[in-house]
Amino acid sequence: MAGVIEFWFDFSSPYGYFAAAEIDRLAAETGRTIVWRPVLLGVVFQSTGMQPLAETPLRGDYARHDWARIARLTGVPFQLPTRHPIAAVAASRAFYWIEQRDPAAAISFARRIFHAYFAEDAAIDHIDVVGDVAQQAGVDRTGLLAALQNAGTKAAFRARTDEALAKGVFGSPYCIVDGEPFWGWDRLAMMKDWIQRGGW
Amino acid sequence: MAGVIEFWFDFSSPYGYFAAAEIDRLAAETGRTIVWRPVLLGVVFQSTGMQPLAETPLRGDYARHDWARIARLTGVPFQLPTRHPIAAVAASRAFYWIEQRDPAAAISFARRIFHAYFAEDAAIDHIDVVGDVAQQAGVDRTGLLAALQNAGTKAAFRARTDEALAKGVFGSPYCIVDGEPFWGWDRLAMMKDWIQRGGW
Repeated sequence: MAGVIEFWFDFSSPYGYFAAAEIDRLAAETGRTIVWRPVLLGVVFQSTGMQPLAETPLRGDYARHDWARIARLTGVPFQLPTRHPIAAVAASRAFYWIEQRDPAAAISFARRIFHAYFAEDAAIDHIDVVGDVAQQAGVDRTGLLAALQNAGTKAAFRARTDEALAKGVFGSPYCIVDGEPFWGWDRLAMMKDWIQRGGW
Repeated sequence: MAGVIEFWFDFSSPYGYFAAAEIDRLAAETGRTIVWRPVLLGVVFQSTGMQPLAETPLRGDYARHDWARIARLTGVPFQLPTRHPIAAVAASRAFYWIEQRDPAAAISFARRIFHAYFAEDAAIDHIDVVGDVAQQAGVDRTGLLAALQNAGTKAAFRARTDEALAKGVFGSPYCIVDGEPFWGWDRLAMMKDWIQRGGW
């Protein structure tokens, strides 16, 4: 049976954002379903000793240049947020809380969070902004904001983070399909080829 | 005037090796000349705080898996060397010494060094192996081995390392064409598109 594409990403990751803009087309071209999986790279980095891209000497400069040209190439609206990277804890917890109730709304929420951060410079690490964006996606704002403080909501996200680490996720985007991992925006085409040819 | 493609790489880098296997086709397709530029990533990493890929948790596992599938995809002979990564100091110094005397022989030498390391598991960090490979490329073995000890030979390579850092080279392969940088084997297609369309 053809498996889903697990799409792991960090809401603070420009490459994750660019991948999100292409992932539906990839789903259509391969006939696979996308399972959106936000995670915090900061937690992953504690395990790998890696640093945020934008804060690594030379590599950070390259990345900023690269994001701008990818935006020009793809036509995806992008401006480097005033504060970057940020820890999208509330947005990520919110995603999984919404997903349990309405999977389609969760994806709509995820897209809007990405757009708010990278196209509108919104402070997506602020709970009220997360609530506003959720409301735009048709989610009960008050119910969500109350739930974000619950131990259960926090534990659910922590479990996803543990799952990500167990699966070897170390960057964003990081896709897994039929057990095969593909790291990076620049590997989406390779993943498509892999799926369509049944691997090599 | 159409500029050259500077092709920076580390002889110890599998992605550099895979790029070397495609770089001539890229030159033919774009009409650009390739300027081969070996460098030591270990020196670069001292400036960036990055670690060798194969030694980074999770990311190292991914990379080993990725190298094997790229070899299957491209048909390029590859086995992870018994000792990896290594510091290819002598081979890199040798390259620039040869290049000053015979640029074509230097490229032949570089290809043979890559092949010796990744297809034959040769100890390319040993001076006698470097001498043997140089001889196969038509180079005066005795003259080369004597020159590797010269202060001038060492300084020439150090100058290239400084040049790499000044240009922002932080990984392998790292190509620069008309001032535009492209990092990674998986960006060769993007670089080709960039050249053919005159940028975006």
